Amino acid sequence: MKIIDIIESTRPIKSDIRNAYIDFSKMTLSLVAVVTDVVRDGKPVIGYGFNSNGRYGQGSLIRERFRPRVLEAAPATLLDETGDNIDPHKVWACMMSNEKPGGHGERSVAVGTIDMAVWDAVAKIEQKPLYELLAQRYGNGQANPRVFVYAAGGYYHPGKGLDGLRHEMTSYLERGYSVVKMKIGGASLAEDMARIESVLKLLQPGQQLAVDANGRFDLPTAIDYGKALSAYPLFWYEEAGDPLDYELQARLGEVYQGSLATGENLFSMQDAQPDPPWRHAA
Amino acid sequence: MKIIDIIESTRPIKSDIRNAYIDFSKMTLSLVAVVTDVVRDGKPVIGYGFNSNGRYGQGSLIRERFRPRVLEAAPATLLDETGDNIDPHKVWACMMSNEKPGGHGERSVAVGTIDMAVWDAVAKIEQKPLYELLAQRYGNGQANPRVFVYAAGGYYHPGKGLDGLRHEMTSYLERGYSVVKMKIGGASLAEDMARIESVLKLLQPGQQLAVDANGRFDLPTAIDYGKALSAYPLFWYEEAGDPLDYELQARLGEVYQGSLATGENLFSMQDAQPDPPWRHAA
Repeated sequence: MKIIDIIESTRPIKSDIRNAYIDFSKMTLSLVAVVTDVVRDGKPVIGYGFNSNGRYGQGSLIRERFRPRVLEAAPATLLDETGDNIDPHKVWACMMSNEKPGGHGERSVAVGTIDMAVWDAVAKIEQKPLYELLAQRYGNGQANPRVFVYAAGGYYHPGKGLDGLRHEMTSYLERGYSVVKMKIGGASLAEDMARIESVLKLLQPGQQLAVDANGRFDLPTAIDYGKALSAYPLFWYEEAGDPLDYELQARLGEVYQGSLATGENLFSMQDAQPDPPWRHAA
Repeated sequence: MKIIDIIESTRPIKSDIRNAYIDFSKMTLSLVAVVTDVVRDGKPVIGYGFNSNGRYGQGSLIRERFRPRVLEAAPATLLDETGDNIDPHKVWACMMSNEKPGGHGERSVAVGTIDMAVWDAVAKIEQKPLYELLAQRYGNGQANPRVFVYAAGGYYHPGKGLDGLRHEMTSYLERGYSVVKMKIGGASLAEDMARIESVLKLLQPGQQLAVDANGRFDLPTAIDYGKALSAYPLFWYEEAGDPLDYELQARLGEVYQGSLATGENLFSMQDAQPDPPWRHAA
Protein backbone atom coordinates (compact mmCIF):
# COMPACT_ATOMS: atom_id res chain seq x y z
CA MET A 1 0.00 0.00 0.00
CA LYS A 2 1.10 3.56 -0.52
CA ILE A 3 0.24 7.24 -0.76
CA ILE A 4 -0.39 7.89 -4.43
CA ASP A 5 -0.95 11.63 -4.32
CA ILE A 6 -1.11 14.72 -2.11
CA ILE A 7 -3.45 17.34 -3.53
CA GLU A 8 -3.59 20.90 -2.19
CA SER A 9 -6.05 23.66 -2.92
CA THR A 10 -5.61 27.19 -1.54
CA ARG A 11 -8.97 28.82 -0.87
CA PRO A 12 -9.90 32.38 0.08
CA ILE A 13 -11.60 32.80 3.44
CA LYS A 14 -11.53 36.57 3.31
CA SER A 15 -13.70 38.52 5.66
CA ASP A 16 -13.76 42.09 6.87
CA ILE A 17 -13.32 41.06 10.50
CA ARG A 18 -10.16 41.94 12.39
CA ASN A 19 -8.60 41.08 15.71
CA ALA A 20 -6.15 43.29 17.61
CA TYR A 21 -3.27 42.25 15.36
CA ILE A 22 -4.41 41.48 11.82
CA ASP A 23 -7.36 41.77 9.50
CA PHE A 24 -8.61 38.87 7.40
CA SER A 25 -9.30 40.74 4.16
CA LYS A 26 -6.88 38.56 2.17
CA MET A 27 -6.83 35.44 4.32
CA THR A 28 -6.50 32.04 2.65
CA LEU A 29 -6.14 28.47 3.85
CA SER A 30 -4.98 25.17 2.43
CA LEU A 31 -7.18 22.12 1.91
CA VAL A 32 -5.19 18.92 1.55
CA ALA A 33 -6.18 15.45 0.37
CA VAL A 34 -3.82 12.52 0.93
CA VAL A 35 -4.85 9.86 -1.57
CA THR A 36 -3.96 6.22 -0.86
CA ASP A 37 -4.22 3.11 -3.02
CA VAL A 38 -6.31 1.39 -0.31
CA VAL A 39 -9.90 0.68 -1.35
CA ARG A 40 -12.74 0.55 1.22
CA ASP A 41 -16.36 0.04 0.15
CA GLY A 42 -15.31 0.30 -3.47
CA LYS A 43 -13.70 3.74 -3.04
CA PRO A 44 -10.11 4.87 -2.50
CA VAL A 45 -9.28 5.92 1.06
CA ILE A 46 -8.51 9.65 1.10
CA GLY A 47 -7.48 11.60 4.21
CA TYR A 48 -8.38 15.27 4.46
CA GLY A 49 -6.76 18.16 6.30
CA PHE A 50 -6.95 21.94 6.48
CA ASN A 51 -5.02 24.63 8.29
CA SER A 52 -6.34 27.04 10.84
CA ASN A 53 -7.41 30.58 10.04
CA GLY A 54 -4.67 33.20 10.37
CA ARG A 55 -1.46 31.82 8.85
CA TYR A 56 -2.47 31.77 5.16
CA GLY A 57 -2.57 28.76 2.85
CA GLN A 58 0.78 27.08 2.27
CA GLY A 59 0.19 25.40 -1.08
CA SER A 60 3.50 26.53 -2.56
CA LEU A 61 5.58 25.00 0.23
CA ILE A 62 3.52 21.81 -0.02
CA ARG A 63 4.09 21.58 -3.77
CA GLU A 64 7.74 22.66 -3.69
CA ARG A 65 9.08 20.66 -0.73
CA PHE A 66 6.73 18.39 1.21
CA ARG A 67 4.61 16.64 -1.43
CA PRO A 68 7.65 15.66 -3.57
CA ARG A 69 9.51 14.22 -0.58
CA VAL A 70 6.60 11.96 0.36
CA LEU A 71 5.86 10.84 -3.20
CA GLU A 72 9.54 10.21 -3.97
CA ALA A 73 10.10 8.10 -0.82
CA ALA A 74 10.11 4.31 -1.21
CA PRO A 75 6.51 3.48 -0.12
CA ALA A 76 7.61 0.76 2.31
CA THR A 77 9.63 3.32 4.30
CA LEU A 78 6.40 5.15 5.21
CA LEU A 79 4.48 2.11 6.55
CA ASP A 80 4.05 0.88 10.10
CA GLU A 81 5.39 -2.50 11.26
CA THR A 82 2.27 -4.35 10.03
CA GLY A 83 2.81 -3.06 6.51
CA ASP A 84 -0.96 -2.53 6.26
CA ASN A 85 -1.14 1.13 7.19
CA ILE A 86 0.80 4.37 6.97
CA ASP A 87 3.03 5.41 9.90
CA PRO A 88 2.34 9.15 10.35
CA HIS A 89 5.60 9.62 12.27
CA LYS A 90 7.59 8.25 9.32
CA VAL A 91 5.72 10.54 6.92
CA TRP A 92 6.47 13.49 9.20
CA ALA A 93 10.18 12.61 9.37
CA CYS A 94 10.25 12.23 5.58
CA MET A 95 8.68 15.67 5.11
CA MET A 96 11.14 17.27 7.53
CA SER A 97 14.23 15.71 5.94
CA ASN A 98 16.66 18.34 4.65
CA GLU A 99 14.94 21.01 6.71
CA LYS A 100 17.23 23.00 8.99
CA PRO A 101 16.32 23.06 12.69
CA GLY A 102 14.70 26.19 14.10
CA GLY A 103 12.66 28.77 12.19
CA HIS A 104 9.35 27.00 12.67
CA GLY A 105 6.89 29.09 10.70
CA GLU A 106 5.07 28.51 7.42
CA ARG A 107 6.54 25.02 7.01
CA SER A 108 4.86 23.87 10.23
CA VAL A 109 1.54 24.91 8.69
CA ALA A 110 2.31 22.99 5.48
CA VAL A 111 3.56 19.90 7.29
CA GLY A 112 0.80 20.03 9.92
CA THR A 113 -1.95 20.20 7.32
CA ILE A 114 -0.59 17.16 5.49
CA ASP A 115 -0.09 15.43 8.86
CA MET A 116 -3.76 16.00 9.70
CA ALA A 117 -4.78 14.41 6.39
CA VAL A 118 -2.41 11.46 6.93
CA TRP A 119 -3.93 10.75 10.35
CA ASP A 120 -7.41 10.91 8.81
CA ALA A 121 -6.35 8.34 6.20
CA VAL A 122 -4.77 6.11 8.87
CA ALA A 123 -8.01 6.05 10.87
CA LYS A 124 -10.09 5.38 7.77
CA ILE A 125 -7.78 2.50 6.80
CA GLU A 126 -8.27 1.04 10.29
CA GLN A 127 -12.00 1.68 9.91
CA LYS A 128 -12.41 3.47 13.20
CA PRO A 129 -12.80 7.10 14.26
CA LEU A 130 -9.47 8.85 14.77
CA TYR A 131 -10.29 9.72 18.38
CA GLU A 132 -10.71 6.01 19.18
CA LEU A 133 -7.50 5.12 17.39
CA LEU A 134 -5.59 7.79 19.32
CA ALA A 135 -7.06 6.67 22.66
CA GLN A 136 -5.99 3.11 21.90
CA ARG A 137 -2.48 4.02 20.79
CA TYR A 138 -1.62 6.82 23.17
CA GLY A 139 -4.31 6.97 25.86
CA ASN A 140 -5.79 4.47 28.27
CA GLY A 141 -7.72 2.72 25.49
CA GLN A 142 -11.02 4.36 26.43
CA ALA A 143 -11.94 7.19 24.08
CA ASN A 144 -13.90 10.02 25.66
CA PRO A 145 -16.61 11.02 23.19
CA ARG A 146 -17.20 14.36 24.91
CA VAL A 147 -14.96 17.37 24.32
CA PHE A 148 -15.04 20.94 25.59
CA VAL A 149 -15.90 23.47 22.91
CA TYR A 150 -16.50 27.18 22.99
CA ALA A 151 -17.69 29.81 20.52
CA ALA A 152 -14.83 32.08 19.47
CA GLY A 153 -15.94 35.35 17.91
CA GLY A 154 -16.38 38.93 19.00
CA TYR A 155 -14.10 40.27 16.27
CA TYR A 156 -13.89 43.95 15.44
CA HIS A 157 -15.97 44.71 12.39
CA PRO A 158 -16.83 48.07 10.78
CA GLY A 159 -20.06 49.46 12.23
CA LYS A 160 -20.57 46.51 14.55
CA GLY A 161 -21.06 48.37 17.85
CA LEU A 162 -22.22 46.96 21.17
CA ASP A 163 -25.56 45.89 19.75
CA GLY A 164 -23.87 43.84 17.05
CA LEU A 165 -21.55 42.26 19.61
CA ARG A 166 -24.46 41.37 21.93
CA HIS A 167 -26.45 39.99 19.02
CA GLU A 168 -23.53 37.78 17.98
CA MET A 169 -22.84 36.50 21.50
CA THR A 170 -26.53 35.85 22.15
CA SER A 171 -26.64 33.70 19.02
CA TYR A 172 -23.80 31.53 20.41
CA LEU A 173 -25.47 31.19 23.82
CA GLU A 174 -28.76 30.27 22.16
CA ARG A 175 -26.98 27.52 20.25
CA GLY A 176 -25.96 26.01 23.58
CA TYR A 177 -22.38 27.20 24.03
CA SER A 178 -21.59 27.68 27.70
CA VAL A 179 -18.38 29.63 27.00
CA VAL A 180 -18.08 32.46 24.45
CA LYS A 181 -14.92 34.33 23.52
CA MET A 182 -14.43 37.86 22.21
CA LYS A 183 -11.47 39.85 20.88
CA ILE A 184 -9.95 42.67 22.89
CA GLY A 185 -6.98 44.97 22.29
CA GLY A 186 -8.27 46.43 19.02
CA ALA A 187 -9.84 49.39 20.81
CA SER A 188 -9.08 51.54 23.86
CA LEU A 189 -9.13 49.93 27.31
CA ALA A 190 -12.29 51.92 28.20
CA GLU A 191 -14.05 50.84 25.01
CA ASP A 192 -13.02 47.21 25.52
CA MET A 193 -14.30 47.29 29.11
CA ALA A 194 -17.67 48.55 27.83
CA ARG A 195 -17.71 45.74 25.26
CA ILE A 196 -16.86 43.14 27.92
CA GLU A 197 -19.49 44.44 30.35
CA SER A 198 -22.15 44.41 27.66
CA VAL A 199 -21.47 40.72 27.04
CA LEU A 200 -21.17 39.77 30.71
CA LYS A 201 -24.72 41.10 31.24
CA LEU A 202 -25.99 38.48 28.79
CA LEU A 203 -24.60 35.53 30.73
CA GLN A 204 -26.73 33.20 32.83
CA PRO A 205 -25.38 31.01 35.61
CA GLY A 206 -23.10 28.36 34.08
CA GLN A 207 -22.13 30.61 31.16
CA GLN A 208 -18.74 32.36 30.92
CA LEU A 209 -16.78 34.81 28.80
CA ALA A 210 -13.15 34.53 27.64
CA VAL A 211 -11.17 37.39 26.06
CA ASP A 212 -8.35 37.26 23.50
CA ALA A 213 -5.83 40.04 22.75
CA ASN A 214 -4.11 38.09 19.95
CA GLY A 215 -0.63 39.09 21.09
CA ARG A 216 -1.15 42.81 20.70
CA PHE A 217 0.01 44.19 24.07
CA ASP A 218 3.37 45.27 25.41
CA LEU A 219 4.00 44.53 29.09
CA PRO A 220 2.57 47.77 30.58
CA THR A 221 -0.60 47.46 28.47
CA ALA A 222 -0.94 43.75 29.27
CA ILE A 223 -0.75 44.63 32.96
CA ASP A 224 -3.17 47.57 32.66
CA TYR A 225 -5.67 45.24 31.01
CA GLY A 226 -4.89 42.53 33.58
CA LYS A 227 -5.72 44.86 36.44
CA ALA A 228 -8.94 46.03 34.80
CA LEU A 229 -9.96 42.48 33.79
CA SER A 230 -9.42 41.28 37.37
CA ALA A 231 -12.79 42.87 38.20
CA TYR A 232 -14.60 40.31 36.03
CA PRO A 233 -15.10 36.54 36.43
CA LEU A 234 -13.54 35.72 33.04
CA PHE A 235 -13.05 32.19 31.75
CA TRP A 236 -9.56 33.19 30.56
CA TYR A 237 -7.43 36.13 29.34
CA GLU A 238 -5.72 34.91 26.16
CA GLU A 239 -2.45 35.84 24.45
CA ALA A 240 -1.87 39.24 26.02
CA GLY A 241 1.54 39.72 24.39
CA ASP A 242 3.86 38.40 21.72
CA PRO A 243 3.65 34.59 21.79
CA LEU A 244 7.42 34.33 22.21
CA ASP A 245 7.60 36.88 25.02
CA TYR A 246 7.75 34.49 27.96
CA GLU A 247 8.85 37.26 30.28
CA LEU A 248 5.67 39.23 29.62
CA GLN A 249 3.57 36.13 30.26
CA ALA A 250 5.37 35.40 33.53
CA ARG A 251 5.12 38.98 34.78
CA LEU A 252 1.46 39.20 33.84
CA GLY A 253 0.84 36.04 35.86
CA GLU A 254 2.15 37.85 38.91
CA VAL A 255 -0.55 40.54 38.75
CA TYR A 256 -3.50 38.78 37.05
CA GLN A 257 -4.96 36.12 39.29
CA GLY A 258 -7.46 34.62 36.85
CA SER A 259 -6.71 31.99 34.19
CA LEU A 260 -4.33 32.90 31.39
CA ALA A 261 -4.25 31.18 27.99
CA THR A 262 -1.49 31.17 25.41
CA GLY A 263 0.44 28.87 23.09
CA GLU A 264 -1.50 28.70 19.81
CA ASN A 265 1.28 30.64 18.09
CA LEU A 266 4.10 28.36 19.20
CA PHE A 267 5.01 26.02 16.36
CA SER A 268 7.66 23.70 17.72
CA MET A 269 8.29 21.46 20.70
CA GLN A 270 11.39 23.56 21.38
CA ASP A 271 9.33 26.74 21.74
CA ALA A 272 7.05 25.03 24.27
CA GLN A 273 9.85 23.59 26.42
CA PRO A 274 9.24 24.26 30.12
CA ASP A 275 11.65 26.44 32.00
CA PRO A 276 14.32 23.95 33.08
CA PRO A 277 14.47 23.33 36.85
CA TRP A 278 18.26 23.75 36.97
CA ARG A 279 17.83 27.44 36.16
CA HIS A 280 16.33 27.88 39.58
CA ALA A 281 18.77 25.65 41.43
CA ALA A 282 21.58 28.19 41.58
CA MET B 1 9.47 58.49 -6.04
CA LYS B 2 8.39 54.93 -5.54
CA ILE B 3 9.10 51.24 -5.80
CA ILE B 4 7.70 50.20 -9.17
CA ASP B 5 8.33 46.45 -8.97
CA ILE B 6 9.74 43.63 -6.88
CA ILE B 7 11.04 40.80 -9.02
CA GLU B 8 11.98 37.39 -7.60
CA SER B 9 13.74 34.49 -9.24
CA THR B 10 14.21 31.15 -7.48
CA ARG B 11 17.46 29.49 -8.52
CA PRO B 12 18.86 26.02 -7.84
CA ILE B 13 22.10 25.90 -5.89
CA LYS B 14 22.07 22.15 -5.55
CA SER B 15 25.22 20.38 -4.52
CA ASP B 16 26.03 16.93 -3.17
CA ILE B 17 27.56 18.36 0.00
CA ARG B 18 25.92 17.77 3.37
CA ASN B 19 26.32 19.04 6.91
CA ALA B 20 25.31 17.13 10.05
CA TYR B 21 21.65 18.02 9.57
CA ILE B 22 20.72 18.40 5.90
CA ASP B 23 21.99 17.75 2.42
CA PHE B 24 21.86 20.37 -0.32
CA SER B 25 20.76 18.16 -3.22
CA LYS B 26 17.60 20.19 -3.84
CA MET B 27 18.60 23.52 -2.32
CA THR B 28 17.34 26.73 -3.91
CA LEU B 29 17.56 30.42 -3.11
CA SER B 30 15.72 33.58 -4.03
CA LEU B 31 17.22 36.48 -5.94
CA VAL B 32 15.25 39.70 -5.52
CA ALA B 33 15.37 42.99 -7.41
CA VAL B 34 13.60 46.04 -5.99
CA VAL B 35 13.06 48.39 -8.93
CA THR B 36 12.59 52.10 -8.23
CA ASP B 37 11.58 54.97 -10.50
CA VAL B 38 14.73 56.87 -9.52
CA VAL B 39 17.21 57.35 -12.37
CA ARG B 40 20.96 57.64 -11.72
CA ASP B 41 23.46 57.92 -14.57
CA GLY B 42 20.64 57.32 -17.05
CA LYS B 43 19.63 54.00 -15.48
CA PRO B 44 16.89 53.06 -13.00
CA VAL B 45 18.12 52.43 -9.47
CA ILE B 46 17.58 48.76 -8.62
CA GLY B 47 18.40 47.18 -5.27
CA TYR B 48 19.39 43.53 -5.14
CA GLY B 49 19.08 40.89 -2.44
CA PHE B 50 19.45 37.15 -2.01
CA ASN B 51 18.84 34.72 0.83
CA SER B 52 21.41 32.56 2.52
CA ASN B 53 22.00 28.91 1.64
CA GLY B 54 19.92 26.44 3.66
CA ARG B 55 16.34 27.77 3.94
CA TYR B 56 15.25 27.39 0.31
CA GLY B 57 14.01 30.14 -2.01
CA GLN B 58 10.80 31.84 -0.89
CA GLY B 59 9.48 33.14 -4.20
CA SER B 60 5.93 31.98 -3.57
CA LEU B 61 5.60 33.86 -0.28
CA ILE B 62 7.11 36.93 -1.92
CA ARG B 63 4.65 36.78 -4.80
CA GLU B 64 1.62 35.85 -2.68
CA ARG B 65 2.00 38.18 0.30
CA PHE B 66 4.94 40.55 0.46
CA ARG B 67 5.29 41.95 -3.07
CA PRO B 68 1.57 42.81 -3.36
CA ARG B 69 1.52 44.61 -0.01
CA VAL B 70 4.43 46.87 -1.00
CA LEU B 71 3.14 47.59 -4.50
CA GLU B 72 -0.41 48.24 -3.25
CA ALA B 73 0.73 50.68 -0.53
CA ALA B 74 0.41 54.40 -1.26
CA PRO B 75 4.00 55.25 -2.35
CA ALA B 76 4.28 58.23 0.00
CA THR B 77 3.71 55.95 3.01
CA LEU B 78 6.99 54.14 2.26
CA LEU B 79 9.22 57.24 2.04
CA ASP B 80 11.45 58.81 4.68
CA GLU B 81 10.84 62.32 6.01
CA THR B 82 12.78 63.93 3.12
CA GLY B 83 10.47 62.29 0.59
CA ASP B 84 13.55 61.64 -1.56
CA ASN B 85 14.31 58.10 -0.49
CA ILE B 86 12.65 54.92 0.69
CA ASP B 87 12.33 54.25 4.45
CA PRO B 88 13.27 50.57 4.86
CA HIS B 89 11.53 50.39 8.25
CA LYS B 90 8.25 51.51 6.69
CA VAL B 91 8.62 48.94 3.91
CA TRP B 92 9.27 46.25 6.53
CA ALA B 93 6.20 47.27 8.55
CA CYS B 94 4.13 47.26 5.37
CA MET B 95 5.30 43.74 4.49
CA MET B 96 4.54 42.47 7.99
CA SER B 97 1.04 43.93 8.12
CA ASN B 98 -1.64 41.28 8.62
CA GLU B 99 1.01 38.77 9.71
CA LYS B 100 0.31 37.12 13.06
CA PRO B 101 3.06 37.40 15.69
CA GLY B 102 5.27 34.38 16.36
CA GLY B 103 6.07 31.57 13.93
CA HIS B 104 9.07 33.29 12.39
CA GLY B 105 10.18 30.93 9.63
CA GLU B 106 9.94 31.12 5.85
CA ARG B 107 8.39 34.59 5.93
CA SER B 108 11.49 36.00 7.63
CA VAL B 109 13.51 34.71 4.66
CA ALA B 110 11.10 36.29 2.19
CA VAL B 111 10.91 39.61 4.06
CA GLY B 112 14.65 39.64 4.80
CA THR B 113 15.60 39.13 1.17
CA ILE B 114 13.39 42.01 0.05
CA ASP B 115 14.70 44.10 2.97
CA MET B 116 18.28 43.50 1.77
CA ALA B 117 17.33 44.70 -1.71
CA VAL B 118 15.53 47.75 -0.30
CA TRP B 119 18.63 48.78 1.68
CA ASP B 120 20.75 48.34 -1.45
CA ALA B 121 18.39 50.65 -3.33
CA VAL B 122 18.41 53.20 -0.50
CA ALA B 123 22.22 53.37 -0.54
CA LYS B 124 22.32 53.65 -4.32
CA ILE B 125 19.78 56.46 -4.22
CA GLU B 126 22.00 58.26 -1.67
CA GLN B 127 24.97 57.47 -3.94
CA LYS B 128 27.12 56.04 -1.19
CA PRO B 129 28.11 52.52 -0.13
CA LEU B 130 25.60 50.95 2.26
CA TYR B 131 28.25 50.43 4.96
CA GLU B 132 28.92 54.17 5.01
CA LEU B 133 25.22 54.99 5.12
CA LEU B 134 24.72 52.58 8.05
CA ALA B 135 27.70 54.00 9.94
CA GLN B 136 26.30 57.50 9.50
CA ARG B 137 22.75 56.60 10.52
CA TYR B 138 23.36 54.09 13.28
CA GLY B 139 27.06 54.13 14.14
CA ASN B 140 29.55 56.82 15.08
CA GLY B 141 29.65 58.17 11.54
CA GLN B 142 33.01 56.57 10.76
CA ALA B 143 32.61 53.50 8.58
CA ASN B 144 35.20 50.79 9.15
CA PRO B 145 36.21 49.46 5.75
CA ARG B 146 37.73 46.29 7.22
CA VAL B 147 35.60 43.32 8.23
CA PHE B 148 36.46 39.91 9.65
CA VAL B 149 35.82 37.08 7.21
CA TYR B 150 36.49 33.37 7.36
CA ALA B 151 36.26 30.47 4.93
CA ALA B 152 33.33 28.18 5.80
CA GLY B 153 33.54 24.74 4.25
CA GLY B 154 34.61 21.29 5.33
CA TYR B 155 31.27 19.74 4.37
CA TYR B 156 30.76 16.01 4.18
CA HIS B 157 30.92 14.84 0.58
CA PRO B 158 30.85 11.31 -0.85
CA GLY B 159 34.41 9.97 -1.21
CA LYS B 160 35.99 13.14 0.16
CA GLY B 161 38.23 11.61 2.86
CA LEU B 162 40.94 13.33 4.89
CA ASP B 163 42.98 14.13 1.81
CA GLY B 164 40.05 15.93 0.23
CA LEU B 165 39.40 17.86 3.44
CA ARG B 166 43.08 18.89 3.74
CA HIS B 167 43.17 19.89 0.10
CA GLU B 168 40.09 22.08 0.55
CA MET B 169 41.34 23.74 3.73
CA THR B 170 44.80 24.33 2.24
CA SER B 171 43.16 26.12 -0.68
CA TYR B 172 41.44 28.52 1.75
CA LEU B 173 44.64 29.17 3.69
CA GLU B 174 46.52 29.80 0.45
CA ARG B 175 43.91 32.40 -0.49
CA GLY B 176 44.79 34.28 2.69
CA TYR B 177 42.02 33.29 5.10
CA SER B 178 43.31 33.21 8.66
CA VAL B 179 40.28 31.30 9.97
CA VAL B 180 38.76 28.24 8.30
CA LYS B 181 35.63 26.38 9.39
CA MET B 182 34.63 22.75 8.95
CA LYS B 183 31.48 20.74 9.61
CA ILE B 184 31.33 18.19 12.42
CA GLY B 185 28.58 15.92 13.73
CA GLY B 186 27.96 14.09 10.47
CA ALA B 187 30.34 11.28 11.44
CA SER B 188 31.37 9.51 14.65
CA LEU B 189 33.19 11.47 17.34
CA ALA B 190 36.39 9.49 16.62
CA GLU B 191 36.15 10.16 12.90
CA ASP B 192 35.45 13.85 13.48
CA MET B 193 38.46 14.10 15.82
CA ALA B 194 40.66 12.61 13.10
CA ARG B 195 39.24 15.13 10.61
CA ILE B 196 39.87 18.02 13.02
CA GLU B 197 43.43 16.91 13.79
CA SER B 198 44.25 16.55 10.11
CA VAL B 199 43.24 20.19 9.57
CA LEU B 200 44.92 21.52 12.71
CA LYS B 201 48.23 20.16 11.40
CA LEU B 202 47.93 22.46 8.37
CA LEU B 203 47.71 25.62 10.43
CA GLN B 204 50.55 28.09 10.82
CA PRO B 205 50.82 30.61 13.66
CA GLY B 206 47.99 33.15 13.29
CA GLN B 207 45.69 30.65 11.60
CA GLN B 208 42.76 29.00 13.36
CA LEU B 209 40.04 26.41 12.89
CA ALA B 210 36.32 26.68 13.83
CA VAL B 211 33.90 23.73 13.85
CA ASP B 212 30.14 23.68 13.19
CA ALA B 213 27.69 20.92 14.19
CA ASN B 214 24.69 22.62 12.56
CA GLY B 215 22.38 21.87 15.48
CA ARG B 216 22.72 18.10 15.26
CA PHE B 217 23.56 17.12 18.87
CA ASP B 218 21.46 16.30 21.90
CA LEU B 219 22.86 17.46 25.23
CA PRO B 220 24.96 14.36 26.07
CA THR B 221 26.51 14.33 22.58
CA ALA B 222 27.12 18.09 22.67
CA ILE B 223 28.94 17.62 25.97
CA ASP B 224 30.92 14.58 24.74
CA TYR B 225 32.09 16.64 21.78
CA GLY B 226 32.69 19.62 24.06
CA LYS B 227 35.01 17.59 26.28
CA ALA B 228 36.89 16.14 23.31
CA LEU B 229 37.12 19.52 21.55
CA SER B 230 38.53 21.12 24.71
CA ALA B 231 41.87 19.52 23.79
CA TYR B 232 42.17 21.78 20.73
CA PRO B 233 42.72 25.54 20.39
CA LEU B 234 39.57 26.05 18.28
CA PHE B 235 38.37 29.46 17.09
CA TRP B 236 34.81 28.42 18.04
CA TYR B 237 32.43 25.47 18.46
CA GLU B 238 29.26 26.37 16.58
CA GLU B 239 25.61 25.38 16.97
CA ALA B 240 26.03 22.19 18.96
CA GLY B 241 22.29 21.64 19.45
CA ASP B 242 18.90 22.76 18.29
CA PRO B 243 18.99 26.55 17.82
CA LEU B 244 16.01 26.98 20.17
CA ASP B 245 17.43 24.75 22.90
CA TYR B 246 18.78 27.45 25.17
CA GLU B 247 19.16 24.98 28.02
CA LEU B 248 21.57 22.85 25.98
CA GLN B 249 23.59 25.92 25.06
CA ALA B 250 23.79 27.05 28.69
CA ARG B 251 24.76 23.63 29.99
CA LEU B 252 27.37 23.18 27.29
CA GLY B 253 28.86 26.50 28.30
CA GLU B 254 29.45 25.10 31.77
CA VAL B 255 31.72 22.31 30.49
CA TYR B 256 33.26 23.78 27.32
CA GLN B 257 35.63 26.61 28.13
CA GLY B 258 36.39 27.76 24.58
CA SER B 259 34.28 30.11 22.47
CA LEU B 260 30.79 28.99 21.47
CA ALA B 261 28.87 30.33 18.48
CA THR B 262 25.16 30.16 17.79
CA GLY B 263 22.21 32.26 16.59
CA GLU B 264 22.12 32.02 12.80
CA ASN B 265 18.90 30.00 13.04
CA LEU B 266 17.04 32.48 15.22
CA PHE B 267 14.68 34.53 13.07
CA SER B 268 13.09 37.06 15.38
CA MET B 269 14.07 39.62 17.97
CA GLN B 270 11.88 37.71 20.42
CA ASP B 271 13.92 34.53 19.97
CA ALA B 272 17.12 36.44 20.67
CA GLN B 273 15.87 38.18 23.83
CA PRO B 274 18.38 37.92 26.66
CA ASP B 275 17.42 36.03 29.78
CA PRO B 276 15.65 38.73 31.82
CA PRO B 277 17.52 39.77 34.98
CA TRP B 278 14.38 39.50 37.14
CA ARG B 279 14.46 35.73 36.67
CA HIS B 280 17.59 35.65 38.75
CA ALA B 281 16.46 38.13 41.36
CA ALA B 282 14.26 35.69 43.30
